[in-house]
Amino acid sequence: MSAGNFIFDTRDTRFILKEWLDMDKLLGYPAYRDYYTKDDVDSFVDVVYKICRDVVAPANAECDEIGVKFVDGKVITPDGLKKAYDTVIEAGLGPQFADREAEGRLPWCFGSCLTEMIINASAATSAYWGLTMGAAGVIQTYAAPELKERFLPKMFNGQWGGTMGITEAGAGSDVGAAITKAYPTDKPGLYKIKGGKMFITSGDHDMVENFVHLVLARIEGAREGTGGLSLFIVPKIWVNEDGSLGDSNDVTTVGIEHKMGLKGSATCTLALGEDNNCYGYLIGDPPDEKGKGQGMAQMFQMMNEERLGTGVLALGTASAAYQQSLAYSKERVQSSKLTDMKGPAVRIIEHEDVRRMLMFQKSITEACRAMIMKTYFYIDTMHDSPDEAEREFAYAMFHMSNPLCKAYTSDMAWPSIAEAIQVYGGYGYIEEYPCAQYARDVKIFSIWEGTNYIQALDLCARKMTMNKGKVMMTFMKEIGTFIEMNKATPGFEDQFKVLGGAFAEYQAILGLFNGYMQAGKVQMLGLFATRILHATAMVYCGRLLLDQALLAARQLQAVGEDHFDATYYKGKMASAKFYIMNIVPEVFNIKRVFELGDTTAADLPEDCLR
Amino acid sequence: MSAGNFIFDTRDTRFILKEWLDMDKLLGYPAYRDYYTKDDVDSFVDVVYKICRDVVAPANAECDEIGVKFVDGKVITPDGLKKAYDTVIEAGLGPQFADREAEGRLPWCFGSCLTEMIINASAATSAYWGLTMGAAGVIQTYAAPELKERFLPKMFNGQWGGTMGITEAGAGSDVGAAITKAYPTDKPGLYKIKGGKMFITSGDHDMVENFVHLVLARIEGAREGTGGLSLFIVPKIWVNEDGSLGDSNDVTTVGIEHKMGLKGSATCTLALGEDNNCYGYLIGDPPDEKGKGQGMAQMFQMMNEERLGTGVLALGTASAAYQQSLAYSKERVQSSKLTDMKGPAVRIIEHEDVRRMLMFQKSITEACRAMIMKTYFYIDTMHDSPDEAEREFAYAMFHMSNPLCKAYTSDMAWPSIAEAIQVYGGYGYIEEYPCAQYARDVKIFSIWEGTNYIQALDLCARKMTMNKGKVMMTFMKEIGTFIEMNKATPGFEDQFKVLGGAFAEYQAILGLFNGYMQAGKVQMLGLFATRILHATAMVYCGRLLLDQALLAARQLQAVGEDHFDATYYKGKMASAKFYIMNIVPEVFNIKRVFELGDTTAADLPEDCLR
Repeated sequence: MSAGNFIFDTRDTRFILKEWLDMDKLLGYPAYRDYYTKDDVDSFVDVVYKICRDVVAPANAECDEIGVKFVDGKVITPDGLKKAYDTVIEAGLGPQFADREAEGRLPWCFGSCLTEMIINASAATSAYWGLTMGAAGVIQTYAAPELKERFLPKMFNGQWGGTMGITEAGAGSDVGAAITKAYPTDKPGLYKIKGGKMFITSGDHDMVENFVHLVLARIEGAREGTGGLSLFIVPKIWVNEDGSLGDSNDVTTVGIEHKMGLKGSATCTLALGEDNNCYGYLIGDPPDEKGKGQGMAQMFQMMNEERLGTGVLALGTASAAYQQSLAYSKERVQSSKLTDMKGPAVRIIEHEDVRRMLMFQKSITEACRAMIMKTYFYIDTMHDSPDEAEREFAYAMFHMSNPLCKAYTSDMAWPSIAEAIQVYGGYGYIEEYPCAQYARDVKIFSIWEGTNYIQALDLCARKMTMNKGKVMMTFMKEIGTFIEMNKATPGFEDQFKVLGGAFAEYQAILGLFNGYMQAGKVQMLGLFATRILHATAMVYCGRLLLDQALLAARQLQAVGEDHFDATYYKGKMASAKFYIMNIVPEVFNIKRVFELGDTTAADLPEDCLR
Repeated sequence: MSAGNFIFDTRDTRFILKEWLDMDKLLGYPAYRDYYTKDDVDSFVDVVYKICRDVVAPANAECDEIGVKFVDGKVITPDGLKKAYDTVIEAGLGPQFADREAEGRLPWCFGSCLTEMIINASAATSAYWGLTMGAAGVIQTYAAPELKERFLPKMFNGQWGGTMGITEAGAGSDVGAAITKAYPTDKPGLYKIKGGKMFITSGDHDMVENFVHLVLARIEGAREGTGGLSLFIVPKIWVNEDGSLGDSNDVTTVGIEHKMGLKGSATCTLALGEDNNCYGYLIGDPPDEKGKGQGMAQMFQMMNEERLGTGVLALGTASAAYQQSLAYSKERVQSSKLTDMKGPAVRIIEHEDVRRMLMFQKSITEACRAMIMKTYFYIDTMHDSPDEAEREFAYAMFHMSNPLCKAYTSDMAWPSIAEAIQVYGGYGYIEEYPCAQYARDVKIFSIWEGTNYIQALDLCARKMTMNKGKVMMTFMKEIGTFIEMNKATPGFEDQFKVLGGAFAEYQAILGLFNGYMQAGKVQMLGLFATRILHATAMVYCGRLLLDQALLAARQLQAVGEDHFDATYYKGKMASAKFYIMNIVPEVFNIKRVFELGDTTAADLPEDCLR
């Protein structure tokens, strides 16, 4: 019953990796073809499942109950967490995934399916290597060869942690307001750093021997705003040129945050150069003659990855809540059925409203899982396909999907986990049962790595106009073609009718949006971006779930009703149907509301808001 | 910044009590006319405001951080809570409100407006007298004169606590499954009690000298199910006939729950008669010859009150989150405006999406406040009006509104508080800021006092057919007449068009519902009851907010644009407009989804749910 009890149905993971995504094609690319086939999926899934059950999930309870402590300037993690970290690293399931140059590396869609399982077992635990992956990736892409050589091996093998040093007290969403400064030294590429960063996830702890902070700072004389920022490698303990550890680099952990959830994850405030003795290596070149630095563009690689990673975190947490509440609903006996009021009390899974809450969770988690893993598939394609047209298509689909994966998943996880709590009744509110923690853990995901409004602006203001609208057109065509090609599939006509209708309404939303923008009503972007993102995600998720359902129907026909897999395929078809008939119609509503176009929120004089 | 920082704008409370509700009429009834006029509102509000700010809100931080402890079988409350409890009791703001026979009592709509303020300051604190009020009310209505005399004075003055002993481990929503037993003794009306109760709010603590538990139990030989239950007064310490305290009554506190929130409120498990020495007084008569007891009907008085009280708890918590995030948005500077991208960073209240989140919260809290306080007004009318037709009308409106007040408010508080957290950004997730606690506190309100699905069934299966549908017809006519009478009001035509459209869609929902029921599709009740409740609440809340807006428009015209109250009236008009143009259209969506009538959730074989 406790949060340390791991429940994960691996069938959907196997479906995605072995049946749905075109893994034969992906694994046929040069990077993979000598190493993996789809047949390897099962053994990976099985190994990770066991590690989650035996080591990671038990750590989750400690993470939440004991949490990380800040004692005498040091961040102390609970013992179970240390064991989980070491086990994951030893099994090669941690930052190793991030090494894009390693022989025998796994595709990210593959690794991310496994990561979702680890998050299900303990979201806080996974944050300890998640940031290292992103930081190492940036160094691998942008840093000079000697820096890569010095820092990457121990980051990829989990001996050192990596972090993302963006946020400051007065610079959260407004990254460009950062005041951390960098001063050139006599040595080219070496800078003295002075300032501080806050909300640094895994910014300090006792499971690694050193930290490699990626710090956004402004080199003296660079311009204001994000454009003037440069990115630095700032180790906590100095790393000598031969790779050995030197002295402290004057990076001080000031404290950790007391958070609503994710209590096993250390959220640190760092002071850089309090004793005027903190140094960092510039990544790439110093600001150009116009004062423009390269930091933001470099950091965006990590940010994009962390955004998608945040989607996986929200997904893994919501899917854990679903699985737990599903298991509980099959055990808990309460009340007789509506259709047999004088009959005996039944297990609550037999009650329609409980079914509704379970199907809501199931369809939301499967929709977001499909969207996120497909997006990772596109990243792999972008990176590994030898075909330029394929890479371009994948590039467009990735850029459109990424803000959806981050924002829609984290937005929907909140009501979805609320339904899991509701299924548990009073026990849902008790901390000895798992769902209260999931709700507490999940709330940060709508905020960090760019709030969900920032994702919505990214979608509506940046992605929709990217490459003169070609990116958006690719996305629209992908959905439109799918609907057009499949709408007559027997047994699915009703669902295509609703999805097709929603897609038409979505196009109307885009038309309205264009009209508002052409009329110079910029505030409509601010007022409706969040809702437009939701509409976009619902149409796209509906399309993906229906694609999965069509495949499931074919597979079901192939294996037959009596096959042990029949239940899975029927469940998949049900997820699509429930999602399209119960959730997608919200797109019609968003269009209606957008058409009404109420601007009260923006127009109201501030002193009337009370 | 901390949770101990009280922010409450009393203007809406004053509007409700002095301008909107017909308090002249209510206070003109015999029970009140010699004691109060509307002019007394301000002084009550001012006194309670000061108590909240100075005593109750500071206790809130202790409630959450220290919480209640269970040590050596005793429940220990933090010191600040004790002080808050004593202060509220001394000021006459606690259980005193419940005494329907007291000279100079306040109407409940009046008292509940004050209670909302106390809940805003500390929801956990208010639970200590909230249950006492309900228990005392049942005793006042149903118990024999000598029992009333023995127990009520010390309950009404807060010396003794009252509780509601319904839930058992295997009997939550299914109250009738309770196994606590009662055995007759030689003395008529006195029974030996054996069993246990759990999730008993304020079931034990160190702020009162005794507890009066109202316990549902089955007298030997009574029928099964809820019909066989009787209600007993079970004191923790025996109360002698002269009112003095006797020996322990063998009521043992087994433990308290470790909860997600409301940590200042003791949620107790009680064992009754472990040493075979627990006694209770039967309220009313023993079961009749058919084995039918009176307990459930008696307890329903308390349950109905606690349901509405739960609405106030959810409202007070959500309104606190709104006020805190509003204040924060006026201070926090971050990013330049969308309409002036190169301009300076502004306070976040100037960003459209923050405005949207604030208006969502403002309109939801004002909608629920209007609905709840109007419902209390109807309760007062039912109880105090000398006019039978008025009482009948109020009876119908109360019964229709009560499940909406409980379920809609607690359902909407969850997304509403999420928006408050989102306004705070990363700080929203930090426990030193107030909003994380509000989210943790509020989640229980969708569960206790009958889960929100039970409320939805109450609405759809009981209230809609009550008195052969007359109750429902009264409710529909009330809304329809309001729309018809006011739809041409200049300046409000658009809002009436949307609300009128939604009301028509709502009638279509009822038509569909009738059709499904007549076709014997009972499962449609289970699958859609929750959504029908939401549609009902949105139509009704839209009607009430628009009524308030019409009044605000008249008041604004009367006082003029330059009056200090103009901002309030404009804000009120904005709340109605935002709610109707952005939230009410969801009714159209519910109708569409109900029409699609997807039954996947119910039809899917259980083993496919995985």
